[in-house]
Amino acid sequence: MKHLSILGSTGSVGENTLRVVRIHPERFSVKALAVKGNTEKLYEQAVEFRPKVICIYDPQKAQKAAPRFKRLGVRVVTGDEGLEEVATLASVQEVVCAMVGAAGLKPIFAAVRAKKTVAIANKEPLVMAGKLLLEAAEKSGAAVLPIDSEHSGLWQCLEKQDPSFIKKLTLTSSGGPFRKIKGSLAKITPAQALNHPKWKMGPKITIDSATMMNKGLEVIEAANLFRVPAGKIEVLVHPEAIVHALVEFVDGSHLAHLGVTDMRLPIQYALSYPERLPDPLPHLDLTQLAALHFEKPDRKRFPCLDLGYTASKIGGTMPAVLNAANEIAVEAFLSRRTAFSGIPKIIEKTMRLHRLVYKPVLADIFAADAWARLEAHSFLTMKKARLA
Amino acid sequence: MKHLSILGSTGSVGENTLRVVRIHPERFSVKALAVKGNTEKLYEQAVEFRPKVICIYDPQKAQKAAPRFKRLGVRVVTGDEGLEEVATLASVQEVVCAMVGAAGLKPIFAAVRAKKTVAIANKEPLVMAGKLLLEAAEKSGAAVLPIDSEHSGLWQCLEKQDPSFIKKLTLTSSGGPFRKIKGSLAKITPAQALNHPKWKMGPKITIDSATMMNKGLEVIEAANLFRVPAGKIEVLVHPEAIVHALVEFVDGSHLAHLGVTDMRLPIQYALSYPERLPDPLPHLDLTQLAALHFEKPDRKRFPCLDLGYTASKIGGTMPAVLNAANEIAVEAFLSRRTAFSGIPKIIEKTMRLHRLVYKPVLADIFAADAWARLEAHSFLTMKKARLA
Repeated sequence: MKHLSILGSTGSVGENTLRVVRIHPERFSVKALAVKGNTEKLYEQAVEFRPKVICIYDPQKAQKAAPRFKRLGVRVVTGDEGLEEVATLASVQEVVCAMVGAAGLKPIFAAVRAKKTVAIANKEPLVMAGKLLLEAAEKSGAAVLPIDSEHSGLWQCLEKQDPSFIKKLTLTSSGGPFRKIKGSLAKITPAQALNHPKWKMGPKITIDSATMMNKGLEVIEAANLFRVPAGKIEVLVHPEAIVHALVEFVDGSHLAHLGVTDMRLPIQYALSYPERLPDPLPHLDLTQLAALHFEKPDRKRFPCLDLGYTASKIGGTMPAVLNAANEIAVEAFLSRRTAFSGIPKIIEKTMRLHRLVYKPVLADIFAADAWARLEAHSFLTMKKARLA
Repeated sequence: MKHLSILGSTGSVGENTLRVVRIHPERFSVKALAVKGNTEKLYEQAVEFRPKVICIYDPQKAQKAAPRFKRLGVRVVTGDEGLEEVATLASVQEVVCAMVGAAGLKPIFAAVRAKKTVAIANKEPLVMAGKLLLEAAEKSGAAVLPIDSEHSGLWQCLEKQDPSFIKKLTLTSSGGPFRKIKGSLAKITPAQALNHPKWKMGPKITIDSATMMNKGLEVIEAANLFRVPAGKIEVLVHPEAIVHALVEFVDGSHLAHLGVTDMRLPIQYALSYPERLPDPLPHLDLTQLAALHFEKPDRKRFPCLDLGYTASKIGGTMPAVLNAANEIAVEAFLSRRTAFSGIPKIIEKTMRLHRLVYKPVLADIFAADAWARLEAHSFLTMKKARLA
């Protein structure tokens, strides 16, 4: 029996993690759940999975909801301290980190230092502080496992292969909703961008998919996780979204990971590793596909991809700056304060003004994150006309 | 430095093995070579690679050619004893078995018992006596590595995965030269069948590819090598011949092996394992392919495939019977003594008349092989009219 903490249990990855737990009750039990503020859904989860502790990050919501949870016999904690407690519970072996945005960073480091197996679904920790995180994991002996489907695929292809045998890593992309749209993307609306053809995900990640920033972030993530330079990582558009990742080895062999587009696949592997458990996913029948296609992405139409490569190559605090500026830009786009084409412009301008710390400690990364948010905001308020 | 014996060095796999050795002289050295009777090519190889010992299986040819080799300082051996000596030389770590047909069986067992790493390119040993061979390897501690490109692909996908996690193994087939031909295949000529679209191989294997018996044999081989029942092994036609093999795991994950169609890829991996060495193979660019297709094979037009499944499911001596009858039938087709459609008929009739040994020892397998050859011959001579 593996005891789990799930950070971000009411989000899309969190709910899918609980679906995996639900069909394997003999293998997994939930000891702790953490959410930002969705106490209604959390209550349902607590009734079903009976955790020992829950964290409601928002203190006011925590205070308001606490009596209801206490009646269930569940302890309620809150804030950064509460999150850290949930991430480091003594009885927990594996922590699933599925919190959107930079908020997950501190509890992930806490979990790694406490030698928990840490399964990471949100890109930000590995983007902002991937190198530091792997160093910390090496020091404590914790395992860091990816849940992002492309990285899970790479991990499964690479698992026990020496990194020196890697010639190239390939991340595939469905191409997002705008792969086939001709002409300018400047006037794309949030509703259009939120309509992703292959994956059902939260709004932030769906917009990242539409701008292809998700692949920019994934390049940084893969470079950090597998210790290869960004120059050895390629992105290919693969509209069928069946092949999630490929590894080319120095001898010319390629291994590819294929599967249906369902998040439960990488989630379950991160939970069951090193074993594999049966799963009632729909069967992948290659003969039912017309064919599999691969094409190079259009880097001019999707400049966010190159921004990801640039940030990875520069390194230091730059990936954190890219990530923070992207969060602000996506929020602005979703609330119609900037155009679709404004997203890469805001990020690039912020990156250009950043004073890089080459060998950051965690405090430098948080400082860069905070600086980039303010800077990106300033573009939105002061230079709105120019960005539109 | 890894010291090698190469059995069948003048055949297609043998020559490709020497090409791999040629570009990695710091890693591999050739201690022994064995051939059936092509002493001219063997002499060139001996001049270049300077083995200590060579085996010319044909005693008369060995006697005739011996003085020339002796002047090079190379010891000449012959016959079954000579082959066994070459397969078990004390100074050799790995034996590459690339002899066409059943002749390779005895030296492979000898090499396995002598705890050599045995890289097997010819299908027959694993088809005829795969279970016995793996039992012997388990006993001696020898490693048995596949060179056949599909099995090398499966091996690379499976390498360190527990067999209980396997849901299905898929072997791909280019479909052979007759995939798109409409109407009867009965009047196909040897010249047509020898014109394979993707792989340049010896005539026996090329005909096996045209009848799809190569896939029938590969199903048996994979079942023995990876210890999965034939019912868990699927054959898919994949005309691009880029994906060599796929593994489906119980959790819905698939790993696939991709590469250019060049035998040096699986040969080199079997030599360099567990490492990977750089290789000057042409680069595989997925974006340069129009698309990848997969389709179910036409089992009615290619009955040899089902014969392979049947033999694997029956087990015991039946795979050896299938293999022997197929050798005779292919020889007969190549010398125009039977029609293309006669090949599966001869095999099926031979299989029907076989008195199965369920738990054979090696002698039973040799006896079944000899019996099947005689039986298949008798169909050719006595019942020629009916088979045409």
